[in-house]
Amino acid sequence: MLEKVDLKKTVDKETYKRESAQLGERLALLQRECKAEKIPVMIVFEGEGAAGKGVQINRLIQPLDPRGFDVYASREAGEEEKMRPFLWRYWTKTPADGRIMIYDKSWYGKVTVDRFDKITKRHELTGAFSDILSFERQLTDSGVVIIKLFLHISKEEQKKRFKRLCENRETAWRVTEDDWKRNREYDRFLLITEEMLQRTDTGNAPWTIIEATDRNYAAMKIMATVADRLQYEVSRRQLERSGNSREVPKIPQERFKNGVLSGVDLTKCLEQDEYKEKLDRLQKKLEYLHSEIYRLRIPVVIGFEGWDAGGKGGAIKRLTSHLDPRGYKVNPTSAPNDEERVHHYLWRFWNNMPKAGHIAIFDRTWYGRVMVERIEGFCSEEDWRRAYQEINEMEAHMANFGAVVIKFWLHIDKDEQERRFKERMEDPAKQWKITDEDWRNREKWDEYETAVNEMLVRTSTTYAPWTIVEGNSKYYARIKVLETVVKALEDKIEEIGSEKK
Amino acid sequence: MLEKVDLKKTVDKETYKRESAQLGERLALLQRECKAEKIPVMIVFEGEGAAGKGVQINRLIQPLDPRGFDVYASREAGEEEKMRPFLWRYWTKTPADGRIMIYDKSWYGKVTVDRFDKITKRHELTGAFSDILSFERQLTDSGVVIIKLFLHISKEEQKKRFKRLCENRETAWRVTEDDWKRNREYDRFLLITEEMLQRTDTGNAPWTIIEATDRNYAAMKIMATVADRLQYEVSRRQLERSGNSREVPKIPQERFKNGVLSGVDLTKCLEQDEYKEKLDRLQKKLEYLHSEIYRLRIPVVIGFEGWDAGGKGGAIKRLTSHLDPRGYKVNPTSAPNDEERVHHYLWRFWNNMPKAGHIAIFDRTWYGRVMVERIEGFCSEEDWRRAYQEINEMEAHMANFGAVVIKFWLHIDKDEQERRFKERMEDPAKQWKITDEDWRNREKWDEYETAVNEMLVRTSTTYAPWTIVEGNSKYYARIKVLETVVKALEDKIEEIGSEKK
Repeated sequence: MLEKVDLKKTVDKETYKRESAQLGERLALLQRECKAEKIPVMIVFEGEGAAGKGVQINRLIQPLDPRGFDVYASREAGEEEKMRPFLWRYWTKTPADGRIMIYDKSWYGKVTVDRFDKITKRHELTGAFSDILSFERQLTDSGVVIIKLFLHISKEEQKKRFKRLCENRETAWRVTEDDWKRNREYDRFLLITEEMLQRTDTGNAPWTIIEATDRNYAAMKIMATVADRLQYEVSRRQLERSGNSREVPKIPQERFKNGVLSGVDLTKCLEQDEYKEKLDRLQKKLEYLHSEIYRLRIPVVIGFEGWDAGGKGGAIKRLTSHLDPRGYKVNPTSAPNDEERVHHYLWRFWNNMPKAGHIAIFDRTWYGRVMVERIEGFCSEEDWRRAYQEINEMEAHMANFGAVVIKFWLHIDKDEQERRFKERMEDPAKQWKITDEDWRNREKWDEYETAVNEMLVRTSTTYAPWTIVEGNSKYYARIKVLETVVKALEDKIEEIGSEKK
Repeated sequence: MLEKVDLKKTVDKETYKRESAQLGERLALLQRECKAEKIPVMIVFEGEGAAGKGVQINRLIQPLDPRGFDVYASREAGEEEKMRPFLWRYWTKTPADGRIMIYDKSWYGKVTVDRFDKITKRHELTGAFSDILSFERQLTDSGVVIIKLFLHISKEEQKKRFKRLCENRETAWRVTEDDWKRNREYDRFLLITEEMLQRTDTGNAPWTIIEATDRNYAAMKIMATVADRLQYEVSRRQLERSGNSREVPKIPQERFKNGVLSGVDLTKCLEQDEYKEKLDRLQKKLEYLHSEIYRLRIPVVIGFEGWDAGGKGGAIKRLTSHLDPRGYKVNPTSAPNDEERVHHYLWRFWNNMPKAGHIAIFDRTWYGRVMVERIEGFCSEEDWRRAYQEINEMEAHMANFGAVVIKFWLHIDKDEQERRFKERMEDPAKQWKITDEDWRNREKWDEYETAVNEMLVRTSTTYAPWTIVEGNSKYYARIKVLETVVKALEDKIEEIGSEKK
């Protein structure tokens, strides 16, 4: 999840000044409206050390009326807190109706810092997560709005900031030995954070990841996120009160998306000679691994998503050409049929989940829910917002059973797509591949890009990660797909081997 | 939970014939309406062996149109099922829109029978429960109605039924060695079942316990439960479609309540001599235990509920009279004040949760949510339905932290209440204790009894059980309260002692 986030985002000073002033006015107005609507609001700031939580909280509260909010800083538990269960201090610090409570660090310490420091034991984790989920569900069920922000910086950026703080005598005391330890073991901390984000990114209290390298960019994104969410909640209540239940406003498109795709290097390519040599070697390897997974009873799920003409078909062909057809199945996904339409949207995919020892390849997948269904309005906004969690749960259920779950996004740019569309139209043998719908979808490129970016961040999990395939070069793309599958199967086989020892 | 259920309920043949015919007609009609509304329905039958699942399913389907339902019998997992994660078979067996799927045993096998047989390991349990909760939440979020029935019989009844089956050559094969084992270890099985019911009794998919000793009674209760729930779901959709969101129909009062209170023996009493002697001994013991829990840093939560004039005040007085006032606090609960009203309803109770080593006594409690607030309409029906789970979660959070949680229901009958009310009115020293509101509440006795019965069953948990105090004799009641507290504290202290060894 986090490794997919582009941390180089910035905003120029002029834009920041102008936009933040506007956002500030909006926030001030929304604060008054939330008060009038008696909406309690909780804003949670989490993030790596030195990611700038203090600075950002300070910027966020500037435009607000100080009589209407409180900031609660979760310092180390005092005597009162230590003598009670961990959620007690947060339960007692929940905001009254119409008030905003801002948390500088929060109950998430229990499953991040405390886990890192081994204060929270492994066997306590699941219980702690379930306590947190109950806590948030109880509050949102009663009408509390929970906005959770995760401020993210890289290991290098963190080190730089710690150093800078240490150089100044007035700030040096703020960097502790624990901070340095977390920087040295940044990768371990990141894994813990990722799991936390995955397990608590719910429909009722979702996370927003804030790229916090550039402070101005972060401040704008935070203000925009809070403003959009409050706007939504205020409008929803106003509409509900007016009795018109069907006209619920759209949940705001998150501004300042975590633009994963914009960071993809599409110049990567491969020459034909190298391609042929690698293809041959990888296909043979895969053939061998296929019999190994059959022997070891490992189920394998491989999902393909990507732009139209992104090269899914070609990649799947190269993936399967040397495999024993009794051991794999390709499931093409198009619009649901009559039987599928009258079931839960995941039902048809559950039906095609592979049995132990088999490979199920999906040409387009359950992610249609958060792409085409979202964009075309085939399901409600609440439906697709909820779907990230539902999909993560489905993939986790398979992974916990021992399945390998691999997901590809075949990425090309808009020019390359146009080139391929035209080529298809001109070639009689390929004309069937291109329809008016493809051209229509192309017009919605930006909307799709927004949806795909959100999807990649919310559903790239440790147990079912996304692989983004640079697809402008078909040779490069096909080899990357094969390499990824081979690597994932080898890793799983090795894992099983070492468990048996 | 289950030990509070009165298993002696019966219905006479005439009533059964008449009512079941009516209920059958209603069910047939509702099935057609669910089809028209495209509502998918899942009805789960769980229960002890020989509780009569097969018989009851058969009775339930009699009035239904066979083209609109299926029965899925969860026999042992076949080859296809074993090669996939445990929810796969149930995901693929979810009903289409407008159809009813009846499950003869279900996904709950994973956390009951399989746990009993040690197929599901201890460390897998939390994961399995969370998978089950996700599964049900995903389905109900998408509009599926889930009705979960638990058919309950006693150990003796089960033994009798097994024997009867064994006596007949045609049915003897149905009783396996596993069945006998579960009967011999009925108490262990019951604990496993209780935990399952507690952890999965959610607002979106609640359990109904069916007293299954008398088959006719069970059949009627099942039909009524299913009919009431379907009626509610059909009406809700019809109203939603008509656009009038504020007029959501009442969720049906469950018929055939698990009448815990009707089984309470109110003739129990105690003579003054014995009372004084016991009181003295228990109070001294409690004084000692109070210092022990302080030393061991055990927090103690004691909640008092009961009928007006049930004797709460007197019992609390005897409980605290020998305690060091620095180590306990009595929290009287009346209508929420301004500050409390603008917070979550549990907030004020969280604020008063004891710290480690202290006792917090609540004179009336958070259970007001599912009694007075329910009956007077101070919260919505959805609010109090959700509250059982919320309350269980709060108590679990305290108990997991190491707290002792004790809850008393002080029970008297209606005549005794009248006698005490009149006595209060006549005695100038007690007149302040009686108000018009008490007389008004008395008129709603039956409504309260329904609410209390439901509360006792849904929130009597292994970690925070209810104790029903037979209160017609004040002497008896006070001693029972003291004995219960002493016993609970001793048990906890012993538990900690044995952990340290």
